[in-house]
Parts: sequence; C-alpha cells; structure tokens
Amino acid sequence: MKSTSNFKTVAWENGCVRLIDQRKLPFEEVYVDCSTVEEVCKAIKNMTVRGAPAIGVTAALGAALAAKNALGSHSAEFYEKVKRALDDLAATRPTAVNLFWAIGRMREILESSQGADPRAVADGMLQAALNILEEDVNICRSIGKHGAELLDDGDTVLTHCNAGALATAGYGTALGVIRGAVEQGKKIKVIADETRPLLQGARLTVWELKKDGIPVTLITDNMAGALMNRGLINKIVVGADRIAANGDTANKIGTYSVAVLAARHKIPFYVAAPISTIDTKAKSGKDIPIEERKPEEVRSALGTPLAQDDVAVYNPAFDVTPAELITAIVTEKGVLKPPFERSISEAAE
Amino acid sequence: MKSTSNFKTVAWENGCVRLIDQRKLPFEEVYVDCSTVEEVCKAIKNMTVRGAPAIGVTAALGAALAAKNALGSHSAEFYEKVKRALDDLAATRPTAVNLFWAIGRMREILESSQGADPRAVADGMLQAALNILEEDVNICRSIGKHGAELLDDGDTVLTHCNAGALATAGYGTALGVIRGAVEQGKKIKVIADETRPLLQGARLTVWELKKDGIPVTLITDNMAGALMNRGLINKIVVGADRIAANGDTANKIGTYSVAVLAARHKIPFYVAAPISTIDTKAKSGKDIPIEERKPEEVRSALGTPLAQDDVAVYNPAFDVTPAELITAIVTEKGVLKPPFERSISEAAE
Repeated sequence: MKSTSNFKTVAWENGCVRLIDQRKLPFEEVYVDCSTVEEVCKAIKNMTVRGAPAIGVTAALGAALAAKNALGSHSAEFYEKVKRALDDLAATRPTAVNLFWAIGRMREILESSQGADPRAVADGMLQAALNILEEDVNICRSIGKHGAELLDDGDTVLTHCNAGALATAGYGTALGVIRGAVEQGKKIKVIADETRPLLQGARLTVWELKKDGIPVTLITDNMAGALMNRGLINKIVVGADRIAANGDTANKIGTYSVAVLAARHKIPFYVAAPISTIDTKAKSGKDIPIEERKPEEVRSALGTPLAQDDVAVYNPAFDVTPAELITAIVTEKGVLKPPFERSISEAAE
Repeated sequence: MKSTSNFKTVAWENGCVRLIDQRKLPFEEVYVDCSTVEEVCKAIKNMTVRGAPAIGVTAALGAALAAKNALGSHSAEFYEKVKRALDDLAATRPTAVNLFWAIGRMREILESSQGADPRAVADGMLQAALNILEEDVNICRSIGKHGAELLDDGDTVLTHCNAGALATAGYGTALGVIRGAVEQGKKIKVIADETRPLLQGARLTVWELKKDGIPVTLITDNMAGALMNRGLINKIVVGADRIAANGDTANKIGTYSVAVLAARHKIPFYVAAPISTIDTKAKSGKDIPIEERKPEEVRSALGTPLAQDDVAVYNPAFDVTPAELITAIVTEKGVLKPPFERSISEAAE
C-alpha cells in the first residue's frame, strides 16, 4: 500500500498555516498559505479545511500564528490580541468539539504565562500546536490499529463523508481503521457515500483511497439502504464531530440515516474518533449544537445550480446518531463498547 | 390554487408525440416533438420523459405514431412494422410496469385487427392512446381525492423523486394526493428530497409545486432522517414504478431508505399509484427487475463532474420497499390497506 504522506492536510510552513484546498479536490491539488488568523478563520468557515480533528489542528496553528503576528506588541496588548484571536477561532464553526479542545489547550498556555515575554509565549504556543499536529497522526494510527481488529478479510465497508487523512493531520479516523486493516494484509473494499451537499465522499474519500490503492466504489447517499438490503455491505465505519457522554454522536448529515439502516440490516456500525472528540459536558446529543449552513449549498453542486434559486432549503451540516445505534466507538485508547456512559467516562479520564 | 394545466407533460400535437424536456427543467421550459418511434424510444431512455405513468402514456402514443408512419405499407408489412415498434418501446426501460401495461393495450388492438385496413387500425390505436392519456389524468384526480383523506390540515409531507404532473399525463400521483388535500382547503407543506443522481426532486417537484403555490422546502436525500428525528415530517407520500402482488413496491432509488426511517419514527408511509402500476405476475419485489444506469450519472450532477471519472460506481435507478413498511397504497379505486395480498388482488381484478 502506498502511504498517504504524499500530501499534507495542514502544516506549518515558512511562518504560515499551509492547507490543502479541499474545496478544489479532486480536480486540483493546490495549497493555501494563511499568514493571518483572519485567513485561518475564513479557511475553517468556508471549508478549505474540514474534518473535526483537522479543524482542531488548524485552529491550534492559527493561534500560534496569531501569537507570532502579535510579537512587537507589549505584553498586555500581546495577550489581548492573542485572546481575541482565540475567540475568533472558536466562533468559526459550532459542532466539532475538537476545535474547542485545541483552542482550550492553546488558551491554557496563554493564560498560564500572562505577563511573560511574548516571544517565549509565542514559541510555547507554536510548539504546542506542532505537538497537537504530530499527536493527531499518532492518535489516528492507534485508532487504525485498534479498529483494524473489527474488520475481517474480504469485508466491504461503507463510509460516509470523509473521515480520512484529509479530515485529520494524516492517516484518518474511519479511513484510518480501513488503512489499519489493509496494513494487516486484509482485503477491504470501500463503498463511499457521495455525501451531499458538499460531496466530501465523492471528492475526498474517493481521492485519498485511490491514492492508496484501496478499492472504492462511489454511490449517492440514497443508495446505501438498497445496497445493505442486497447484502453488499458488511461493516460501516464513520468519523465523528462530537461525542456526548452517553455515546450520542454528531457527525456529517446523513450519518443518522446510515445508522438506522445498519440497525435494520444488523450491520455493525462503528464510530472512529480521537478522545478529543468526546465532550463529557454534553450529557446527550441534545446538548450538541448543530450548524445550519447556507441554502446555496443545497441548491447547487460545486457551483452548478440544481434547483430554482428562491426555493426554501434546510441545510443542517450534521445530525446526531443515538448511542443505541452504535456498535462501538474506536479511539486511540481502544474500542469503547456499550454501555457507553461507563466506557466513555473511563476513556475520557 | 393555480392549476397545473399550464404545461403538458406529454401530448399528441400535429401528428407528433410532444414532450416537455424534463432534463432541462427547471431552467428551461422547452418541448420536443418526436416524429418517429425511434425518437420516442430515445426520449424514454434518456429521460426526456420519466415517471411510470408518463412513460406508459408516451409509449402508447409512440405506438400510435409508429402505426401512422407505417401507413402506405400493405397489411402484413404494416403489422410487422408496428409489432417491431412495440418491441422497441418495450425494450426502453425495464422497471416501470406501466410501460408494459400500455404497450399491452396497444398490442391487443393490433393483434385483434390483423388483416384489417391499416388506416382503421392506426386510427384505433391513436384513439386508444389518447384514451390512455385522458384516463391517466382522471385516475390521478381519483388518487388525489382518495389520498387527500389521509392528510390533515397543517401536515408537512415528505416526498421523494417526482410523482407529480410531470410523472403522469397531469396532476400526479403522490403530488396528486397533496393537490387533493390542498383542494379540500387543507394547509400542506411539502419537503422534497432532491433525489440524486438525476435530481427529479430538486428540479421537477420543486418546479411544479412552486407553480401551484404549494409551499415546498428542498433537502438533500441524506437529511430526511434528521428531519424526521426533529419531528418536522408528519406523513410521507411517494409514487411507484411497479407494485408486486404482495405490496412490495419498486420506486426511485432512496425510497427504501425513507421507508425504513419512517418506520423508526412511526410516520405513515403512503404509496400513490394507478392500478396499472400493479403487476400481479410479480409475486414479490424479488420478481421486479431493477434498472442499472450509467456510472456517469453518479459521477456528475447536471453535467458537472463531482468525482474522478474513473471511479467505480453503483447506479441502481430503483429500489424495492417491502410491503411491511408501507402504511397504505392509494389508487384510483381507493386506499388499499394491509394485508396487501388481499386488497391488491381485489383492486386488480
């Protein structure tokens, strides 16, 4: 298997946050260098970068960038500028908790070093952000190793959206599980839901699996049920944007439907995510805010109008899959099984 | 409510079969005149016209067109030409049974008048085809009247694909039920699944409901489950391409997923279709052939590429919803309820 290291989802390059522009994939592989925190915020909002872990890493690097750019200000002003940058980063997208987790780690450094030399604080923040990035790849590899045990040689695995190398600093969560199984020598085929409206499955999951030589077949989202009914799907693995204390999981819109269909067909439904995706402050899915995005996304596909431009639209970016529909949650600390209240609370400690 | 009579899905005009080009809606309202049966076959295959009842009407008019064009041949040659045309029409699309039903009616006329004057046969076939067309609108109005009783004032109704005036000679089946309720003075809101890959919901259902002033909100197919979970959908009404003797129903891909989600949320799931959609020769859904269409449809949306052009694709155009998930089947003869073996067999007599 070829590695996925031939592209970087997010990196620190020449004092900028460099992102592969995921809006242009798979047709163009271009990189965007963000030199201000405003540019980083915009890139998160407009989904140049997306995927809960990747957003967390990008926000951490964005905070480090803000600190670097605030050098030259005296200590109090430096602190204020970086604090404002952290608030701006936190206001970009509401659902993925990894964003708030990463910002929280950066905020701790800032707050614990109030009054310290700005250069030392900025250096500390950059080092912490680079650690978060490196950790993220290692966490994904651990998720892959634990999750690989759940897949059998010859399995056809359905995945929704993109929870791959492009959704993380590398390797991926759901696709990390698949990569882990492939590295064990298992033959795995993947079925990718295209994932309307922004088509992360069609554009991103297909692109990165083809790069790795893992067989992938593309379907529209509404075909998953029919394929399960024909016995063409053995397992389902998806990522997560936020996992509540009881196991309820927010993930890309459409995940809930896949989980309901999986239950009907008695197909195991796995969520793969780092511990940083768990939000124990959210008791259940009801406590997870769901982002509603612009109607234009539904009325069009990659800029091509599909419907009249004045039609009313719902566009929730995520939905919540109740814990009862989840077979297991794969984390870097191992495979969490029901009852999730207990297994999550132990893992999150 | 404004009527839908300001466009004609299919008509006999100046010796041609005139079709509204459904591939160009809602952005262009253009009509195609088919002057040969080859053109009619092509229009059915490439989905210039689609929707089970509309395909049946179009095939009947296509057969009449073939007979008209074969005039001048002596009797045996006329018979052979028209017979071949009927075979060609039957080979256009495999799933919608209304096609075979309409062709069967035309074939009866041809076969019962073997040796008769070709002009008399051609006239008889045209009259029969025009009767099928007129019957279809009346049948839809009856479906609407019966189905309206199932909807309550204030209901929000989800529909999938387009089972409207554009899928029939006029008024529609699933949308006929909604129109019937609106004509009774009930306030009904519609949620339209966009219905990938060919987007009949986004393009056609939205277009014709907006023309009628019926409130419609567009969603991507993968949002239906989340909206049911939020309590935003009270009823579901869809059309059908073929209904087996036991009630199993083939309809546009994605219908099965909607039905599974409806069952989980205890939302009534209604199928609306003329008796001609019932195929008692099919004992269950297993006997219904499912058309697999070109991979390009999934790899693109209205001509815009969404994924790499060499990715493998599944593209079943239909799926089968098992009878157990169907609350009732609305026909022109009334509302059929479970057990469907009995109610269907009585209605199909």
